Amino acid sequence: MRYHRIPDETVRRLPIYLRALLFAADQGQESISSRDLADFVGVNPWQIRKDFSYFGEFGTRGVGYDIYELAQQIKKILKLDVTKQAALVGVGNLGSAILAYPDLRMFGLDITAVFDVNPRKIGRKVGDVEIESVSRLRTLERRKINLAIIAVPRNAAQKVAEALVRAGVMGILNFSACYITVPRRVKVITIDIATDLARLPYYVPTR
Amino acid sequence: MRYHRIPDETVRRLPIYLRALLFAADQGQESISSRDLADFVGVNPWQIRKDFSYFGEFGTRGVGYDIYELAQQIKKILKLDVTKQAALVGVGNLGSAILAYPDLRMFGLDITAVFDVNPRKIGRKVGDVEIESVSRLRTLERRKINLAIIAVPRNAAQKVAEALVRAGVMGILNFSACYITVPRRVKVITIDIATDLARLPYYVPTR
Repeated sequence: MRYHRIPDETVRRLPIYLRALLFAADQGQESISSRDLADFVGVNPWQIRKDFSYFGEFGTRGVGYDIYELAQQIKKILKLDVTKQAALVGVGNLGSAILAYPDLRMFGLDITAVFDVNPRKIGRKVGDVEIESVSRLRTLERRKINLAIIAVPRNAAQKVAEALVRAGVMGILNFSACYITVPRRVKVITIDIATDLARLPYYVPTR
Repeated sequence: MRYHRIPDETVRRLPIYLRALLFAADQGQESISSRDLADFVGVNPWQIRKDFSYFGEFGTRGVGYDIYELAQQIKKILKLDVTKQAALVGVGNLGSAILAYPDLRMFGLDITAVFDVNPRKIGRKVGDVEIESVSRLRTLERRKINLAIIAVPRNAAQKVAEALVRAGVMGILNFSACYITVPRRVKVITIDIATDLARLPYYVPTR
């Protein structure tokens, strides 16, 4: 089966639906209505139906979605049905938090290469993985790792991104609170904690 | 001026536009087209125009948006024009990364209360702020802090959320990789690093 190109905003929401479906399955549920799913993740039911319309017909009116089937389908579309290796650059507080983050494997991701610039960290182990020098980023190509997470201070992020691109990385999750410039063929998703926090006051009565 | 209720997804994007506008201003730019802004933040130009349509008419055809004016307007809508105090619960790796995150004040947020459960951390200072015991969460009400960030292990998140709600907190940013249940009047935004990472493989050719 081939899919049409799915809008970025839908791709952003699909893992959130997946997380909710896996949670509901864990609670023993077998099906879920778009309304309940919507309530759970905090979007409109019509948004969910529209998002799912990009990849086929799901759900039976009055019964709802089969949780297992829908979760499998989302995993397949997001290419999470096969575990992917990813690299992490920067083992500061944020990098360490990412490494310790629960459920990455549940979402098909396995951080199998970790890099830092600090000589005192290089050679240390985090879980099963040994921290390597950033000078070894170029080895990613022959290790067939083409996803990477950048969690370095912002003034180092662009250089790291360039090294990753030279090493054949095609997808970057950038946590460095800055914009990075890469060739168009490389996908960058920027996670900015400040802009996430900045959403909150809107909803809260002024004191 | 009163605004209509703005959709959550628009509220999510506004700080991202704001970040880009502040960056462009920093580079000496005075105006920006919706196309350039769209390119910069990675959304469609029509999405930007639609998002801005919720709060008025901006931009002059062929000239683009006045960066300063638009940034001020977005700050006002998001209630970021006055700095807000926020609490942080959990000073592990993730909490420490949030505390060290650049630009929170630029987005109108100031973390002025920090809590942990670990006796070895309580009493220590992070920046200007002393880490307090979570037993003191109830003091938030009289300190007039009604925004909070949860960065505790997931099995502790629900209890912390309940304590925050009892202390009058009205907006919670939840980084704990789990769902928390709060009364409807309280706004919860959940940030889930796993679901952010899970977006990446979709864009990357399979090896």
